[in-house]
Formats: sequence, structure tokens, C-alpha cells
Amino acid sequence: MVLLKTEGLNVAVVGVTGAVGTRMLKMLEGSPLPVKSFLPLASKRSAGKKVLFGGKEWVIEEANPDSFTGIDIALFSAGGSVSKQLAPEAAARGAIVVDNTSAFRMDKDVPLVVPEVNEKALFQHHGIIANPNCSTIQMVAALEPIRKAYGLKRVIVSTYQAVSGAGAKAMLELENESKAVLEGRVPEPEILPVKGDKKHYQMAFNCIPQIDLFQPNDFTFEEMKMINETKKIMDDQTLKVSATCVRVPVEISHGETVYIEIEKSGVDASEIKNILSDAPGVVLQDDPAQQIYPMPADAAGKKEVFVGRIRRDPDIENGFHLWVVSDNLLKGAAWNSVQIAERLLKLGLVKFDRA
Amino acid sequence: MVLLKTEGLNVAVVGVTGAVGTRMLKMLEGSPLPVKSFLPLASKRSAGKKVLFGGKEWVIEEANPDSFTGIDIALFSAGGSVSKQLAPEAAARGAIVVDNTSAFRMDKDVPLVVPEVNEKALFQHHGIIANPNCSTIQMVAALEPIRKAYGLKRVIVSTYQAVSGAGAKAMLELENESKAVLEGRVPEPEILPVKGDKKHYQMAFNCIPQIDLFQPNDFTFEEMKMINETKKIMDDQTLKVSATCVRVPVEISHGETVYIEIEKSGVDASEIKNILSDAPGVVLQDDPAQQIYPMPADAAGKKEVFVGRIRRDPDIENGFHLWVVSDNLLKGAAWNSVQIAERLLKLGLVKFDRA
Repeated sequence: MVLLKTEGLNVAVVGVTGAVGTRMLKMLEGSPLPVKSFLPLASKRSAGKKVLFGGKEWVIEEANPDSFTGIDIALFSAGGSVSKQLAPEAAARGAIVVDNTSAFRMDKDVPLVVPEVNEKALFQHHGIIANPNCSTIQMVAALEPIRKAYGLKRVIVSTYQAVSGAGAKAMLELENESKAVLEGRVPEPEILPVKGDKKHYQMAFNCIPQIDLFQPNDFTFEEMKMINETKKIMDDQTLKVSATCVRVPVEISHGETVYIEIEKSGVDASEIKNILSDAPGVVLQDDPAQQIYPMPADAAGKKEVFVGRIRRDPDIENGFHLWVVSDNLLKGAAWNSVQIAERLLKLGLVKFDRA
Repeated sequence: MVLLKTEGLNVAVVGVTGAVGTRMLKMLEGSPLPVKSFLPLASKRSAGKKVLFGGKEWVIEEANPDSFTGIDIALFSAGGSVSKQLAPEAAARGAIVVDNTSAFRMDKDVPLVVPEVNEKALFQHHGIIANPNCSTIQMVAALEPIRKAYGLKRVIVSTYQAVSGAGAKAMLELENESKAVLEGRVPEPEILPVKGDKKHYQMAFNCIPQIDLFQPNDFTFEEMKMINETKKIMDDQTLKVSATCVRVPVEISHGETVYIEIEKSGVDASEIKNILSDAPGVVLQDDPAQQIYPMPADAAGKKEVFVGRIRRDPDIENGFHLWVVSDNLLKGAAWNSVQIAERLLKLGLVKFDRA
């Protein structure tokens, strides 16, 4: 639990009741950030309810432009439309926004940051910093140490994504559908694969190869996020990236099979393992003889990115395969956002009243 | 239901009580094969029990070498050790064995057959024909029409495999674990990921990147099956193939993200869709605007291989991505075996008493 300081940061969380928002609160509580005051913000529906933070009750307020007066750092995770409307208002009032939606990620003036990869991009911020897509974050955190050592030419990723990426209601939908199927009833899906799309499909005991809406090129928006965000975060538009994103009946933690081609020849899988075993924010879990490899059920609730199943492609000398797992709500969202806030402070980029 | 003929084939099914064996029986019933007599074989434990076939009850016998005297076709799906012991005995007694285990798949003298791909290999049989691994069958069925049209250089596959591939008890384990998790109890896994391996992990609401035992090269045996069997079935040792196999909490039907590089340049995704829409045993389900794509829940119980999400790689002109789904117990096992038996008859390779 964070000790509230007499001097320190005024922090707001927008969307504090959601799957990510509740975890932003927990990550803030566990962070050394000096939080002086906490402002939980949400939609009108949740206004008036209370949340516990730092051992104290705080009343949820409806988010509006003036909510951000006096706020130093505002963490947003209430959907793209809320961010589009309120993040610029917050920034105009002097808050630094860390936004977990896709609203500003590809804006030239908005740094898209995974601290282990491109912390320095924070110096270019103009009030809004974007938190990347969950599936992108865990992948680039695992790939950056490899790129630094050997260069990176190409990435092909297939995802095994948890339903919590679609929010708390999608998690409940998976639970209810699972119960229905086990009891011999027919599930009645209303949310997944995409709340705003026309058709809804059973998620329980099924895989759905659609996350977010389809784009004109027949990739989904989730796949295009992985492609475009990876190039931006790694600051390499020549990097070849492709993605297929699939939702699986898991509540928390995304899995990813990641195929890479590195620049350097003659590298052995054991060297890549060595590099990842020392990498920040990454935990190597790779011992086939002992059946040790990452799994969503183990990663849930943890902040790290877990990597295993590392091996060379049988036919391509510079090709390697990895299996990457991380809690999509923590490193994929809440923790990466709080981590950005911590780095902002460390880099001297947050001005607040120390008097 | 098959009408039992006064002249026709004497057919045995070894492992008739298993997840695949029960489906072999159903596929045989639905087949135009002229079955004169049916011999259900299993382990001692099941001997004496009865099964219905062709509207008649048949008593299960314990499989032993002399069981196969007078048998024309024997379908095996009772595990590799049973096949290793009894398939040669059956062949020595004049039966043609279609073996669904991995026991003989890579033997030079044993054809490894997916009828839509390499039916002609049946002419080379010496009494035993191997049915490929489930995840391999559905992939090569989808890839062969593309290879015929454009040539094929490279395949990278990631699988989303159902637990029924590990047998009927694994399906029950997933159900029991799912109930436990939903009721807040801790599951006690005893079978998955691999019955014969040291550790067992929760499958419910989890993904496990291990199917079958690990090999010295850190690939699993399942992954090596996909690599080696694909090259053998497609009769191309220069084809580059790599695989990562992951078990997901689905009961029936495997999904696969398949990346391919074709020989020919300038091919459009729509041309590949056209080819697959006409391909034998393949059903194209690819209309992103209407959210139409294959899913395990839809494929279960069907004999076809379903393909969708076909699109060109954004960075590689000759690279394409596909999503392939099929019932692993049917086209992946029972149906492919019965289909082989049908082709044997059609090609005049089964000698039986027509008098």
C-alpha cells in the first residue's frame, strides 16, 4: 500500500471501475510513486461509488474536462472515445496523460512507450503518452533485447489472446458460456468477439480469429495495431511484421508464438536464452526437459513478460521461434501505464509541487 | 447406416471404444464401403462389451494376432504400441492396415496418405498404410491446391489444438477442470499435456505449449510430426516447414495459423480463395465483412477442412496467411482413415471375396 504523501503527485485514473482501471489502482498502490491525492474518475453510472486507495476511501467522480485541474498524471483506460474527448482537455490543464486506448497511438506527436524498449521517447511528449496495445507490449519487450544484440529483420506473430482484453463483461460472458456448455445449454453470446460488431459467437471451448474490427485489407484492427505499433515503438519502418490475432477461451494473459529472423548469422538458441535471462522485465522459462515453459495460468497476476520454447527454425539459419506470455491487464495495460508514470518522474518530466 | 452385404469386406476396428475408434465406426456406417462383417477389437478391459454397427450388435473382442485372419481392412487407433505389435501381424494375415498412430508413419515402405493430396502413394503399400497426424492432415489438405497452382516454398504453422487429440479422458479432464475453476476449486490435472510425461498442468482456461514429448532439438514430437510428415506427404524434402504446437481449452477441432511462401509472384489473395473454393474436401469460409471465418465450434462433427482469413503478408509479396480449422477426430483421424479405405477399394487395391 502506498503511503499518501503531504507532497507529491495528484493522480487521476479515468475508467477506474474497468478491468484495466481496477488494476491501475492496484499497480499505483504498489508503486513507489509519491501519490499525494488520488482522483478516481469514471462514467456517470459509477459516479458516487467509492474505491479504496492507500487505505482511504475516495469517491468516484464523473470525468469531465475540469476534473483534471490540478492533476499531475492522468491514467486513461475508459475507451477510445473518452480519451479522444478528454485526454486533450487534461493535457491542456497541465496533466500528463498516459492513455491506454488506441486513440492517439499512431499520432506523430504522441510517444508510444514500452519503458524497456523506448523510454527515451518520453522526452518528446506534448502532454499525451500512449500505452501500446497489450499484445504488442509483451512482444516488443521480449524482442528488444534480441534486436539490440543481433538486429531484427522480420517478425511473424500468432496470438492466443485472453477475453479480458475485451473487458470485464467479456470475462463474465466466457464464464457464463462455459457453465452453459458444461450443463448442456446453448450459450447466447452478446459481446465477443467484438462488442460493436454485427455478429457474436460462442467463446467457450472455441477459438475466434477476430479481435477488433476488420480493416479494408482483411487484417483486423488488432493485427494492424501489432504491425504498426511494433514498427513505431522499435523505431524501424523497415522491420517486416505480420500478425494473426486469435481469441482463445482464457480469462487473463495472452500467449504468442513469435517467429523472428535476426540480422546476425551463426547465433545459437542458447545465446538468445542467455540474453533474455538478463533482460529487464523479462523472465526466461525455458527448460523442455523439465517441462518448463510459460503458460497464461501462471502469468496471470504477474508484471513480467515470460518467454520460452526458444529454438532455431529447422530450415532457416537466422530464424528462431519463441513463445511469449504475459498478463494482458498488467504489463499489457495497467502496469505498463504506471511504469511510464514512474519513468516520467525518474526522468524529471513531471513537474509537481514539492513545497 | 451401412447395409451389411452378403458379399463385401470384412472390416476390423482396433481401439473401437476410443475417441477416434467410436468415430471410425460412425464414418464406416456412413460410407458406401460394402461391409460384410464388422469386427470390433479393443483391449482386454473392453472385451465382451457390445457395439452397434449397421443396425446389429457386435461383441468386442480382445485384439490378438489371430483376430485378423480373414479380415480385409483393419483400421487401427489404439496407440502406437498396439500398432507396432499387431499391425504387422494383421498385414501378414492378408489384411490391409490403415494405422492412425505414429508407429509407421515415417517408414519408407509405408505410404502416409491424405487422399486429396497423395492418393497415388497407396499403390506402394505393403500391407500397412499410415494415417498422418491430425494437425498435419488438415494443413496439407488446405495447402495442396495452392501448391499445385503456384508452388510452395515455405510453411510456418502455429496450432490451436483441441484436447480430444489426447483422447477421451483428456476431454473429460478439461470438463472437470473447467467446472472446478468455475466453482472456485483448484483443478487436479492428471493427464494433460501428455499422459506419459512427468508433470501435468491445468488445461481449463489455459494454453499449454507442449503436445507430445520434447525431442532433443527442443521441438515437441507433435511439432516434428508436422514438419516431417508434411514433407513426406507432399513428397518434397526441400519444402521449408516449421511448427509450434499449442494445446488450447477446446474439446474438438484444431485451429492453425499457417504462413506460406509460394513460388509464383504476383498472385492475389482472391486467386487463392478461388482455388480453395473449388478444392476437394476443403470449404472456404472467408468473408471478413460478414464476419465469416472458420471456428472450431462450427467445424466439430464435420468432415471437411475449413479455410479462411486468407490475406497477403504486408511485407512479403509471395507470403500469405491462412487460418485452417478441422475436426481433429474426423478428417484428422477417423474420416481420413475410412477415406483411405474407400480409395483402396476404388483403386482396386483391396482383394476380397466377391463370389
